Amino acid sequence: MILSGEYDEGVIESIHDVVERWGGRYFYVKYSGTPLEDIKKFKSRGFCIVHLTMYGLPIQQMIEDIKSKCRDLVVVVGAEKVPREYYEVADYNIAIGNQPHSEVAALAIFLDRLFDGLELSLCFPDAMIRVEPQARGKKVVVIGEKRG
Amino acid sequence: MILSGEYDEGVIESIHDVVERWGGRYFYVKYSGTPLEDIKKFKSRGFCIVHLTMYGLPIQQMIEDIKSKCRDLVVVVGAEKVPREYYEVADYNIAIGNQPHSEVAALAIFLDRLFDGLELSLCFPDAMIRVEPQARGKKVVVIGEKRG
Repeated sequence: MILSGEYDEGVIESIHDVVERWGGRYFYVKYSGTPLEDIKKFKSRGFCIVHLTMYGLPIQQMIEDIKSKCRDLVVVVGAEKVPREYYEVADYNIAIGNQPHSEVAALAIFLDRLFDGLELSLCFPDAMIRVEPQARGKKVVVIGEKRG
Repeated sequence: MILSGEYDEGVIESIHDVVERWGGRYFYVKYSGTPLEDIKKFKSRGFCIVHLTMYGLPIQQMIEDIKSKCRDLVVVVGAEKVPREYYEVADYNIAIGNQPHSEVAALAIFLDRLFDGLELSLCFPDAMIRVEPQARGKKVVVIGEKRG
């Protein structure tokens, strides 16, 4: 994950903390002051650039095309007004509904469709703790140790 | 939508503003200082109470049961630590994956599964403006007038 805009150390620390306890150490996050340049680099390396925007083409019409044509991809979401350049560098401008919505929600729906829901069953072998699903209440079991 | 916790006039105004321009006037939002009481009232009127929590049962196992048994339902999401009473009043404690996640994302995935993706094609006949989907750029058309 590449975070840009206002630098927020707290976001980065909190992601590291979640990954440390809940696993998924292949996941990384870094800050960038030049996100458009980063995107262009990924594009030149063959990544598809998918920009989520309520002004784009409907995901339900485009998802199979994306799945068949993109081996690796970068998903771009903007919390605030996204400059025109991002619409242009994107291989796909994709709408998760053409109504105003949360970009976190858009990212979730996009990934859910991309992965056909398989992400819901993700287990991280490097987790220290995991949830045992309950009809009521909370159960967390310890399955690993903190690494030095 | 019932909003609780810290009172934030800005959230309510911004929702009203979106509904005014983008349509969906059946949607309402109010603030409540006693959300547990509100939930109990809905429950006594026959609504299913679905509480989204990473500690609950997997949505992929439960969604068909919810669809078949619930005619009306209230979805409960908590931004911060949710008191035990909510787990108890809920008919269903449902996990959108058992990993830490955004509750906005959880709500989006839950509704997407509940509506079988039909929400992506929603049109609001009372909208003043709507998006015309584009491969690149933004196109918004005016389709209605501001009501008195």
